[in-house]
Amino acid sequence: MLYTKTYSIATKGDGTVVDLTRQLSEFLASATFNSGLCTISATGSTYAISTMEYEPGLIEDMNELLQRVAPKGPVYHHDARWGDGNGYAHVRATLLGPSISFPVVDGEAQLGTWQQSILLDFDNRPRTREVAFTLVG
Amino acid sequence: MLYTKTYSIATKGDGTVVDLTRQLSEFLASATFNSGLCTISATGSTYAISTMEYEPGLIEDMNELLQRVAPKGPVYHHDARWGDGNGYAHVRATLLGPSISFPVVDGEAQLGTWQQSILLDFDNRPRTREVAFTLVG
Amino acid sequence: MLYTKTYSIATKGDGTVVDLTRQLSEFLASATFNSGLCTISATGSTYAISTMEYEPGLIEDMNELLQRVAPKGPVYHHDARWGDGNGYAHVRATLLGPSISFPVVDGEAQLGTWQQSILLDFDNRPRTREVAFTLVG
Repeated sequence: MLYTKTYSIATKGDGTVVDLTRQLSEFLASATFNSGLCTISATGSTYAISTMEYEPGLIEDMNELLQRVAPKGPVYHHDARWGDGNGYAHVRATLLGPSISFPVVDGEAQLGTWQQSILLDFDNRPRTREVAFTLVG
Repeated sequence: MLYTKTYSIATKGDGTVVDLTRQLSEFLASATFNSGLCTISATGSTYAISTMEYEPGLIEDMNELLQRVAPKGPVYHHDARWGDGNGYAHVRATLLGPSISFPVVDGEAQLGTWQQSILLDFDNRPRTREVAFTLVG
Repeated sequence: MLYTKTYSIATKGDGTVVDLTRQLSEFLASATFNSGLCTISATGSTYAISTMEYEPGLIEDMNELLQRVAPKGPVYHHDARWGDGNGYAHVRATLLGPSISFPVVDGEAQLGTWQQSILLDFDNRPRTREVAFTLVG
């Protein structure tokens, strides 16, 4: 059995972190079966999917970490070539990766109490992001 | 077909890396079917799942890498807000991600000879960690 | 339903990025069913799987990012112990992770137009890499 659904999520970009818990709950509630392997995946190259204790302090900490390893500001080779100005966003997304997977048992995502599924949008402008949810079981 | 099982693993925290090969073997041996897609996932926000050639030198190298990008020591916004002292552990876990997936064929996990599935515990104290194993096929 | 196939891909190592789009298309075309959850995974410990807008500028940017966080050059504990000289490649692979997952709907991988599935080979010499493709649905 396979169930997949894509959600459009508007973000401000620039390090915005979106808690996907609401979309995940809605997705699981709308499935016709209630156990399986769940994947959440990005369908673009300047945002990532991971998990985090969703609270403002950690969002700021995560952006500071990424500013150390892939700073916004310098001109990247991508920007020199294409003029996008978002080279930093691309490499951050590749570093974090586009997908996470976890089991769902009796309708319950097997994530921790303080562990939310998240979208991290690194692009340099507001975007509407497509996030794919898949349940197979 | 779906099979899922959670293992509790006691660690010393603070950069401990646990080789999950034994749990993976036990998990696959206990399944009633022997081929599928396998996922190993963390159910908490201060540890990560990845793969590594499990040997002491690389464990030390990995901790030194993470100390460069998300040093233990400074007060993170998370710590300032909640007093946990483990902000560095949270951002390291988000950076590495909570899950890995790979095929299992005739009972054999399709990982390399020198590639072990691992749990990396970043928290600042000993913890017992839940790790979810899922096989779908 | 489960379908899995492994591709051997020769690379020059040393930060080579391989666009896996051709292998993914061939894999999906050869499957006997056309929707499911697809995983691409590495079966070794010195290369990683992620996604990226595949263009030369970003490949260079990504290698520069990794040179900052896990520089090639210093002797790693792994190298001191085993003499491999590729400690930097191991920790880069653990950092990025070995696998990505995404849905396939009616034969179409749900990735973005500018988002290619990629193999990043970090080893310090040319290698032939095994990449496992799995479709379950």
